[in-house]
Amino acid sequence: MPKSYRVAILGATGAVGTELIELLEHRNFPLSQLKLLASPRSAGQTIPFRGESLTVEAVADGCFKDVDLVLASAGGSTSKQWLPQAVEAGAVAIDNSSAYRMDPQVPLVVPEVNPEAAFDHQGIIANPNCTTILMAVAIYPLHQVQRIRRIVVSTYQSASGAGARAMEELKTQAQAILNGEDATPSVLPYPLAFNLFPHNSPISEGGYCQEEMKMVNETRKIFNEPELAITATCVRVPVLRAHSEAINLEFEQPFSRARACEILSTAPGVVLQENWQSNYFPMPMDADGRDEVLVGRIRQDISHPCGLELWLSGDQIRKGAALNAVQIAELLSRESGDASSPSLSSSSVQR
Amino acid sequence: MPKSYRVAILGATGAVGTELIELLEHRNFPLSQLKLLASPRSAGQTIPFRGESLTVEAVADGCFKDVDLVLASAGGSTSKQWLPQAVEAGAVAIDNSSAYRMDPQVPLVVPEVNPEAAFDHQGIIANPNCTTILMAVAIYPLHQVQRIRRIVVSTYQSASGAGARAMEELKTQAQAILNGEDATPSVLPYPLAFNLFPHNSPISEGGYCQEEMKMVNETRKIFNEPELAITATCVRVPVLRAHSEAINLEFEQPFSRARACEILSTAPGVVLQENWQSNYFPMPMDADGRDEVLVGRIRQDISHPCGLELWLSGDQIRKGAALNAVQIAELLSRESGDASSPSLSSSSVQR
Repeated sequence: MPKSYRVAILGATGAVGTELIELLEHRNFPLSQLKLLASPRSAGQTIPFRGESLTVEAVADGCFKDVDLVLASAGGSTSKQWLPQAVEAGAVAIDNSSAYRMDPQVPLVVPEVNPEAAFDHQGIIANPNCTTILMAVAIYPLHQVQRIRRIVVSTYQSASGAGARAMEELKTQAQAILNGEDATPSVLPYPLAFNLFPHNSPISEGGYCQEEMKMVNETRKIFNEPELAITATCVRVPVLRAHSEAINLEFEQPFSRARACEILSTAPGVVLQENWQSNYFPMPMDADGRDEVLVGRIRQDISHPCGLELWLSGDQIRKGAALNAVQIAELLSRESGDASSPSLSSSSVQR
Repeated sequence: MPKSYRVAILGATGAVGTELIELLEHRNFPLSQLKLLASPRSAGQTIPFRGESLTVEAVADGCFKDVDLVLASAGGSTSKQWLPQAVEAGAVAIDNSSAYRMDPQVPLVVPEVNPEAAFDHQGIIANPNCTTILMAVAIYPLHQVQRIRRIVVSTYQSASGAGARAMEELKTQAQAILNGEDATPSVLPYPLAFNLFPHNSPISEGGYCQEEMKMVNETRKIFNEPELAITATCVRVPVLRAHSEAINLEFEQPFSRARACEILSTAPGVVLQENWQSNYFPMPMDADGRDEVLVGRIRQDISHPCGLELWLSGDQIRKGAALNAVQIAELLSRESGDASSPSLSSSSVQR
């Protein structure tokens, strides 16, 4: 078995791909080889990694030979096209796209919430949507103590959620507006600089957009609570990186603020950030580049006897995408230990 | 009685004051004289109005002599200091500050909601908080048809809510960040450009900030529903002007989306703006400079059988402040008609 893994990143030149490379460079993941894959358009670029210069290769038939682990972040259709081939070639794929998330055969994993699910894979493990990951990390520790009955969440999602080009567009637009010029959008459907708009994912039946239904359906799957009542309003805001969320929770029983703070102050992946005197709470500029989800403004909901309000900011590209995927890989690598790598085999493993 | 009014604007050089002047210039309010008042610091500035150049005067003892109507927008302490004197001198004051809003002697008026309250004044009429006005206009038509039981609202508030200097600061900061420089805040407590943070009003007991408690208490007063369950999370976002709100409503009984759309499509002060195909809904850039509150994304709440979700954007300076005040003045002027101006006398008038 490989004590150290031959890793391929599919979508290596995107915002999440770039973050994956950065995380693999600095974290302690046992990596023996890194292969950078992207569309033919991006092939040939060189990217520094651990003192070497790696050349981005075009994804192509046979490219997953001699790869143990694929970290995919190139969109749903690319994942659908290439990951079955990667699994066929013997690799395990951790997929950042939405392609496989709701597939009952595919585990959907937030390591702080349902790490055990990661081992029950058949070659593909799905990484949840960014807003879902951030919320799950923040509220699951409370849900473990007292069951959540209903969630009403409003999001404040940065440009990074639409990729590196949307981040560039936000900056270009902001400069145009400051110059008194028009801000013409091309990546996003409407100008984002000094503006905001409901999330631009396609609208599904009932008027919820896909992003909102991801929060609903993925949270239910990760929590293993198929009936959990959740409603979401997802909004794109002119922030470069890091999402924020205003979350209203209704529990089965009253849940005190003090108890919630006690739980969240030691919860994995959470930093409780509250300074009531200086009105200092989580904000994107502080979450940017951090591994943890910043949680604060925990309030007893004055509109409901069993309600609790909380606020969070978390790095959408890092914990909301790349870091969560790498943490899943780390789970698998730790589990495989010195034995014959069961968690990186492509057959389902029961713990 | 004055068929046309001698009006004074207190706080004439601020963001709302500027908008008040603009509205009086273009609307059909019967005005015979306009006096511009501000702090001594701003006195001496000249401001064009209907072809004339008006000089801003320092607010001072005796300045409300020969004034019928004061539109005040210079902060709570200024209102507390000067409005009693204006009333003493025989004027009616419409106050944009929070100073008198919760005073049981003072009506708190949104003309689309509780116009009758405006006439029951003792010299001072309060203009509600901007976020409250926008929400009240959007949801009261629904509340009239079917009682609302609970409101969970998250706001997306622009820099304009903190005044003209905060708007300038946002632009300066954005330019600094685009130049790769630091964005040092001085008006707002934290950088707002490409960032956001929970509303910076002082935190009251229970962790709600003043802005949030305004939404709770003022909505209850305007709706005359002292027990209405409301919780709010107020957030400052890097938008220049126009606030947005994600509002989750629970009714006593199920409320269909179709019925809500029907009601809101003809509701006063509301524009229903929904294009599901192109994902086009209210946004600040469209609300900017508009009189109406833009409402859209009305959805049946999938988390609650009696729930409804809606989304709005409204011009915080216009309908959220200046326009609402002018509309109150217009109510009073229409009511006084040709009779002896009862609604502009300083004694309470029962209709």
